[in-house]
Amino acid sequence: MSLDAVLARIDQDLPAATDRLLDLLRIKSISTDPAFKQDCQDAADWLVADLASMGIEAQKRPTPGHPMVVGHAGPENGKPHLLFYGHYDVQPVDPLNLWDRDPFDPAIEETDSGTVIRGRGAADDKGQLMTFLEAFRAWKEVHGELPCRVTFFFEGEEESGSPSLVPFMEENAEELRADFAMICDTVMFESRTPAITTMLRGLLGEELTITAPSKDLHSGMFGGIAINPIRVLSRIIASLHDDQGRVTIPGFYDGVPELSDELEAQWQGLAFDHEAFLGDVGLSVPAGEQDRTPLEMIWSRPTCEVNGIGGGYQGDGFKTVLPSQASAKISFRLVGDQDPHAIRASFREMVQDMLPADCTVAWKGHGASRASGVATDDPSFARALKALSDEWQVPAAYIGSGGSIPIAGHFQKILDTPPVLIGFGKDDDQIHSPNEKYDMESFHKGIRSWARILDALT
Amino acid sequence: MSLDAVLARIDQDLPAATDRLLDLLRIKSISTDPAFKQDCQDAADWLVADLASMGIEAQKRPTPGHPMVVGHAGPENGKPHLLFYGHYDVQPVDPLNLWDRDPFDPAIEETDSGTVIRGRGAADDKGQLMTFLEAFRAWKEVHGELPCRVTFFFEGEEESGSPSLVPFMEENAEELRADFAMICDTVMFESRTPAITTMLRGLLGEELTITAPSKDLHSGMFGGIAINPIRVLSRIIASLHDDQGRVTIPGFYDGVPELSDELEAQWQGLAFDHEAFLGDVGLSVPAGEQDRTPLEMIWSRPTCEVNGIGGGYQGDGFKTVLPSQASAKISFRLVGDQDPHAIRASFREMVQDMLPADCTVAWKGHGASRASGVATDDPSFARALKALSDEWQVPAAYIGSGGSIPIAGHFQKILDTPPVLIGFGKDDDQIHSPNEKYDMESFHKGIRSWARILDALT
Repeated sequence: MSLDAVLARIDQDLPAATDRLLDLLRIKSISTDPAFKQDCQDAADWLVADLASMGIEAQKRPTPGHPMVVGHAGPENGKPHLLFYGHYDVQPVDPLNLWDRDPFDPAIEETDSGTVIRGRGAADDKGQLMTFLEAFRAWKEVHGELPCRVTFFFEGEEESGSPSLVPFMEENAEELRADFAMICDTVMFESRTPAITTMLRGLLGEELTITAPSKDLHSGMFGGIAINPIRVLSRIIASLHDDQGRVTIPGFYDGVPELSDELEAQWQGLAFDHEAFLGDVGLSVPAGEQDRTPLEMIWSRPTCEVNGIGGGYQGDGFKTVLPSQASAKISFRLVGDQDPHAIRASFREMVQDMLPADCTVAWKGHGASRASGVATDDPSFARALKALSDEWQVPAAYIGSGGSIPIAGHFQKILDTPPVLIGFGKDDDQIHSPNEKYDMESFHKGIRSWARILDALT
Repeated sequence: MSLDAVLARIDQDLPAATDRLLDLLRIKSISTDPAFKQDCQDAADWLVADLASMGIEAQKRPTPGHPMVVGHAGPENGKPHLLFYGHYDVQPVDPLNLWDRDPFDPAIEETDSGTVIRGRGAADDKGQLMTFLEAFRAWKEVHGELPCRVTFFFEGEEESGSPSLVPFMEENAEELRADFAMICDTVMFESRTPAITTMLRGLLGEELTITAPSKDLHSGMFGGIAINPIRVLSRIIASLHDDQGRVTIPGFYDGVPELSDELEAQWQGLAFDHEAFLGDVGLSVPAGEQDRTPLEMIWSRPTCEVNGIGGGYQGDGFKTVLPSQASAKISFRLVGDQDPHAIRASFREMVQDMLPADCTVAWKGHGASRASGVATDDPSFARALKALSDEWQVPAAYIGSGGSIPIAGHFQKILDTPPVLIGFGKDDDQIHSPNEKYDMESFHKGIRSWARILDALT
């Protein structure tokens, strides 16, 4: 009956837990923008203080970038040692004009589909991170002690390529190693089915700037005779996919596995409604590789996307400039054994080969992580899956994820610690977009889910 | 000897004339940006006041956009009635960080290639416009009266497509008609040879915005399956030219004439140094139609250029967004009998045909003017050419212009008044770019040139 007491305590404490989350959401911890460096420090301090408030000692640990928060608690009692990972940094908020409210003045809103917590980071990842902090708080209040050895490990650079993460994990490997690494940064399947994500794509980010003339020119005087970097860049981007949606970079598909018959059968059983998935965002036709199913496109196939492009005059009205430069940010989602460094080299070589006379290209790399898959043989996985099913009253599933969570691979490779990816995000949470939200149901049942999982694993 | 007295007076007054120009350059009359509406009014007021200071009555005349300035002066004495046209509006100043000084805090600077007047509008077109106002001021001070009937006609929308110009000219055709329309908004040939520009390309401006998903998406969750508008736009732009540099829009070359043998011979005589022309801006290889000479590329062939592109995340760092929209500003320089409206229709149809499923395109048109050529049979042209040769001590030439000066065609078509395009800009003036300048030599000898031309034509 002790689990029931913890669940009851969680229900009772929900208003206070919500206030704590709103407090954290007010901190503008945008990690990619140096203007918000102090805010990231503030968010780390907030977490240290919150852990201290429940009697758990944690420290802010410096890195060359934003700090880590690390804490240890609970008895070494022969039960599994669990690590909990989340990130306190958030995405930039632009375009700001598309938000219905200040992204850092969060609020509880009633919507047609229920109560939501609205604000930047509500779902990604502050709301998710707080689900397990609140579960531990309730557990400690009921039991006076945690059920097992627990390590907390929070970073502040997840939205900006995690440059400090690998060095920090390598330097502190002994301290951070655990039996399982619980990661709360993923979604449920189709917003309805709780899930453990066992297949994660890797991420390679590249930024290129093409320079043609040495300065901006008048397109009347120089148009026609002078090479235009926007045209050069457009031609490069247009050549990255063939007519069938396949990426054309030489060697790109090296190491891309075919689905096993077993997984293919399991995914067919999920009856993914791609029309609803696309319809929610105004689309109808799957635009990826034409010989692949929609679930393969988002879970198990590699992609190449342009995340941003800019050059020349973009203000109101018209300016007949022939610009000196044009640039683009391009990301690749990787699967199986694709080698991000080999793909980076091949991509850069392909672009170099396409450059016309008088053009140069400058590169900036933004992270390079391999895909990772998680073996689910250990019985703890089945126990966690049952705990999720019990809470949500729906059979939980093992699923893939289109997004990249490089940390999962790092836990496997650096710490030899299997990652357990459980999240309560929904597909319509608008993470990375204006009006990000986290359902109150996700927050509440998420906290309860962690209490059940703690109970099931210890 | 009366011309000599006027020229001496110009030399003597140069410091004061320079101060007047600096004063005008301080007014932020950016016509394309509604934020600077009052500044455009201020610039028009300034011109009215400056004409009044030399005893010439002019009025600010309202339009649906920025006002015109119109004034009439001088005797009806049987000499040619001359109209003088210029524009008081300027281009936007971004990227501001590439300016070495505040673009609206102009200054006289000593450079390796001589004294320059630095600031937005110094060359395009405030400095050029002031060359004839200063010539008239000196003429009036020496002679007490102008040598002929003169009409002043200044607009404030030249850099934003001149939406009010044609209606205003049509409504006031009787008032504005003259024997010649002197237009000071062009460059000298290769910065050294004074010239009358007799061949002008037309201009068609188009802005398109591609919308794919209804909102910005996470490229991890939706990358691969959701269509990306940057990729769609890049493919469109990449398809606008073939491998030989020809524009691929159906019917684009309808009405494009071949050069006459005579003009071809004259242009070969000019010995255009395209390597120096391109070398000044960091380029070496003519990038236009591969079967055309460099002079044809910039004077007599039509072009299609992308002036700006934008979509997705363009800030510092990286954001894995799959954007909802991407847009581009594209301009076409037209020659001969090319029909801007037919090309606009054909371009829009071509883009519509290229759109994949789930994508829409929104259009904004920015001006559509035909090319124009000027017949030089009237002996006044030869007299003006000689006046220019006398001032600059170099044989002046009839040349083409890559830029579009739609007003020239309007004078021909609406007022039946032949345009005489004489300007003293130089290729390195950086008009439309950061650090725009006008050489003090252009300003000084430009004023003297107009005095000589006035003397020669009257």
